[in-house]
Amino acid sequence: MRDPEPQRKTARDAAPNQREDIPSTYPSVTQGIRNQEREVDEEDKEEISVESYPMPPSYLLPHLAAGGCGGAVREGEDQPLVPPLNFAMVEHGVFRSGFPEASNFPFLQSLGLRSVLCLCPEPYPEENLEFLRTNGIKLFQFGMDGSKEPFVNIPEDTIREALKVVLDTRHHPVLIHCKRGKHRTGCVVGCLRKLQKWCLTSIFDEYQRFAAAKTRISDQRFIEIFDVTSLKHLNTSFTCLEK
Amino acid sequence: MRDPEPQRKTARDAAPNQREDIPSTYPSVTQGIRNQEREVDEEDKEEISVESYPMPPSYLLPHLAAGGCGGAVREGEDQPLVPPLNFAMVEHGVFRSGFPEASNFPFLQSLGLRSVLCLCPEPYPEENLEFLRTNGIKLFQFGMDGSKEPFVNIPEDTIREALKVVLDTRHHPVLIHCKRGKHRTGCVVGCLRKLQKWCLTSIFDEYQRFAAAKTRISDQRFIEIFDVTSLKHLNTSFTCLEK
Repeated sequence: MRDPEPQRKTARDAAPNQREDIPSTYPSVTQGIRNQEREVDEEDKEEISVESYPMPPSYLLPHLAAGGCGGAVREGEDQPLVPPLNFAMVEHGVFRSGFPEASNFPFLQSLGLRSVLCLCPEPYPEENLEFLRTNGIKLFQFGMDGSKEPFVNIPEDTIREALKVVLDTRHHPVLIHCKRGKHRTGCVVGCLRKLQKWCLTSIFDEYQRFAAAKTRISDQRFIEIFDVTSLKHLNTSFTCLEK
Repeated sequence: MRDPEPQRKTARDAAPNQREDIPSTYPSVTQGIRNQEREVDEEDKEEISVESYPMPPSYLLPHLAAGGCGGAVREGEDQPLVPPLNFAMVEHGVFRSGFPEASNFPFLQSLGLRSVLCLCPEPYPEENLEFLRTNGIKLFQFGMDGSKEPFVNIPEDTIREALKVVLDTRHHPVLIHCKRGKHRTGCVVGCLRKLQKWCLTSIFDEYQRFAAAKTRISDQRFIEIFDVTSLKHLNTSFTCLEK
């Protein structure tokens, strides 16, 4: 049975005042996706329908009341929860998935998210924005082209900026997502694993577990050559690994 | 750089005296695998070489000094870490994998494990026992036949007892493993997800992500009919989901 007033187990409660310290601006990472004729792959075609117009600046949503679970979870408490496509836990306070749909909102509410990190360049759907707003969840958007290889161009700087958000525990719990949770998300998580000193075999194994038949050599090559030196000073104490 | 005296981030430090409260005995779950002529599948054939003799009682390893990381991690600090086959984080304090080998020990040390839950019936390899002993990690062994379907007989009571260990945060962080981290581990994790009210589609999707081409309908059917009623009173507050 769900408690009518559930106790949140998230960092949000542990340090409620720290939320104001979250940097409100991040480098413009949408450069390069504007005015491009993009080679759109199946990943782009099949998912959320979005208009193709210039990328807006990253949203900074208002921090609404903590414990912003509305009636949805309560109403549906006997209904099964529906995680987003390709959902998984990456680390303490870090999740990954494909693009969340409305059916996933009760599940996402249950995670007590503080942030969502979207790797798609398209404007975030209004329905999702409303969900984030209602639940006081901040959106970070680091738009990257989801093009099919060999027309691929993984923007290293964007991955690096996205990783900085993921590594900042003030944003935890955070959900990293793209459209299918395979390629762009796989690259960010792969680079995180590299920072954690995982061997490449295990990094690729994890990548392939999500990408499956859509595995891209170009993504794996990107992860292999990605230089983590500039990120090594950042805090990774939230991860499972001792430092 | 690793700190020469790393600060453990585990519950072990938070409540060091609670370790003595851990129940030292669990129901005998090896019944039924003795004196059986088992249909051994590829999973059994390819992994760790073990003698086929009667199952010993569950081990209760001595609680050695906390922070039992020996010199191995320190010596290999510039070496990449090698997670076990099919390693993943399931929930806060719960991991899953295939059978750990010696090459995985430095990685496992970094997780600060308090327990390992092995689902294979064979005696635990001496090398692994020594690793557990050195690091003060307790072994729970709930041996289950890894037979290939259709000669499958998943012991519901054993899964239920294994889940009770997984749900007991006094044993966290805990690593659940079988041989390949696909079938037996997949069933335990699938039943945990059912307790968390995940929809079956998502439970099966996660199961298949690890089982891949070895996906078994019988495992999924087992998860579908598994009755979580008797476990609902147990604490799941460690999970991502609010209750």
